[in-house]
Amino acid sequence: MDKMNQSSAEAEAETIEPLRYLSKGEAAAIETELLRDYRFGQQQLIEIWGQACALAITKAFPLSSLAKKQPTVLVICGPDQNGSIGLVCARHLRMYEYEPTIYHPQRSSQSLHQDFTVQCEKMDIPSLSYLPTEVQLINDAYNLVIDAMMGPDADCANLREPYPGILVTLKQIKIPIASVDVPSGWDVEEPSQDGINPEVLISLTAPKKCAISFSGKHFLAGRFLPYDIQKKYDLNLPDYPGTDCLIEL
Amino acid sequence: MDKMNQSSAEAEAETIEPLRYLSKGEAAAIETELLRDYRFGQQQLIEIWGQACALAITKAFPLSSLAKKQPTVLVICGPDQNGSIGLVCARHLRMYEYEPTIYHPQRSSQSLHQDFTVQCEKMDIPSLSYLPTEVQLINDAYNLVIDAMMGPDADCANLREPYPGILVTLKQIKIPIASVDVPSGWDVEEPSQDGINPEVLISLTAPKKCAISFSGKHFLAGRFLPYDIQKKYDLNLPDYPGTDCLIEL
Repeated sequence: MDKMNQSSAEAEAETIEPLRYLSKGEAAAIETELLRDYRFGQQQLIEIWGQACALAITKAFPLSSLAKKQPTVLVICGPDQNGSIGLVCARHLRMYEYEPTIYHPQRSSQSLHQDFTVQCEKMDIPSLSYLPTEVQLINDAYNLVIDAMMGPDADCANLREPYPGILVTLKQIKIPIASVDVPSGWDVEEPSQDGINPEVLISLTAPKKCAISFSGKHFLAGRFLPYDIQKKYDLNLPDYPGTDCLIEL
Repeated sequence: MDKMNQSSAEAEAETIEPLRYLSKGEAAAIETELLRDYRFGQQQLIEIWGQACALAITKAFPLSSLAKKQPTVLVICGPDQNGSIGLVCARHLRMYEYEPTIYHPQRSSQSLHQDFTVQCEKMDIPSLSYLPTEVQLINDAYNLVIDAMMGPDADCANLREPYPGILVTLKQIKIPIASVDVPSGWDVEEPSQDGINPEVLISLTAPKKCAISFSGKHFLAGRFLPYDIQKKYDLNLPDYPGTDCLIEL
């Protein structure tokens, strides 16, 4: 390599900064800024994220690739924002000709969460009243499980039933798991050694620290994020192709 | 054609019902049901529609097809819901590497409308304080105009300034106009003979009666619409391809 080429290669290497992985505090700070300063609405963000999750599922598990005759998907929704995103994801999957079933053990009293629940009910999306403890039943009935239980705001050290029980079940199932933002039961900043083991992770806005060495299929969904926030937090997000709202990392 | 083929052809013809074009009352009734019974939020619907409009613009006017060096677009936003949809459209166009400028003469006091305005301001999307009456200035500065002024709820017989003046300007410009849902100044149920003449129309949810003989490029964006509403109003919507949220009619 001659000198000129070398220095231009160095310059290029300098401009490609690595993607930032967020701490729990940074993830919370970005969301607060989006809501308070940029005046995004929670309903708006959940709709954007939920749809992006559904699109990620169509890329990771196209209808034509599913092992079972029926394109069944089990969507497990937690009580907070991650669960609402799961509900929106289920609704869009229904539109994309999948057959989602929702398991939503604790419904929030928050009116926004209830609205997303009614939208799914009115789309005739069935929901389970309990999760079978016999994992073979889950393996046989569904092509995959979407884990929309715990987001970065969850207090994983103090999970209460039914969530620890659900995690035990999810650790045993053989069908793939796709986790929304943070795999449930994992610490936001550290991958879990003995936790669930998702094949797919859909990071929202920017990936969290626990995803640094994630070895499965990893999508990022957060194209709506204003440039000033991207700069302020040095996110170094990749360029989204065309009009796609998500990218595989 | 033998008898069997003939009857199967007849059966097929019977099953393909024509797309419904909505009256003003039907359009309002569907929106009321979505909000009241299906518990969709206005913020959620405006985000869905605005993003679909931006995608329609990328299909009708791809970046590579634009006549001017800068990918400039003028988005004219009315005071009500159609204007909010225009604001969301502008925000997404910015993400898709277009250079939108907003003209938003009367800002609503509604907090939702204000929130969408702040989101654009925070994305550094410039806005005009007045529309030049010299149409050549508009022709020279922009590749196209997005007309997000009046929706199906507007009372076009009693428009007040500045809107009649804007319509006079839009009737004279030479660059293409893309209208959101209903071309501004048109009656919802009747195309206007001497009104603005958009090249592109983006119908939301289902087309309105004024679009029956629309001869330009016509997109439909409304894939989120629950099946029960589609059936109740005999909408006979086309199948959206893949995961697209809009379709060209």
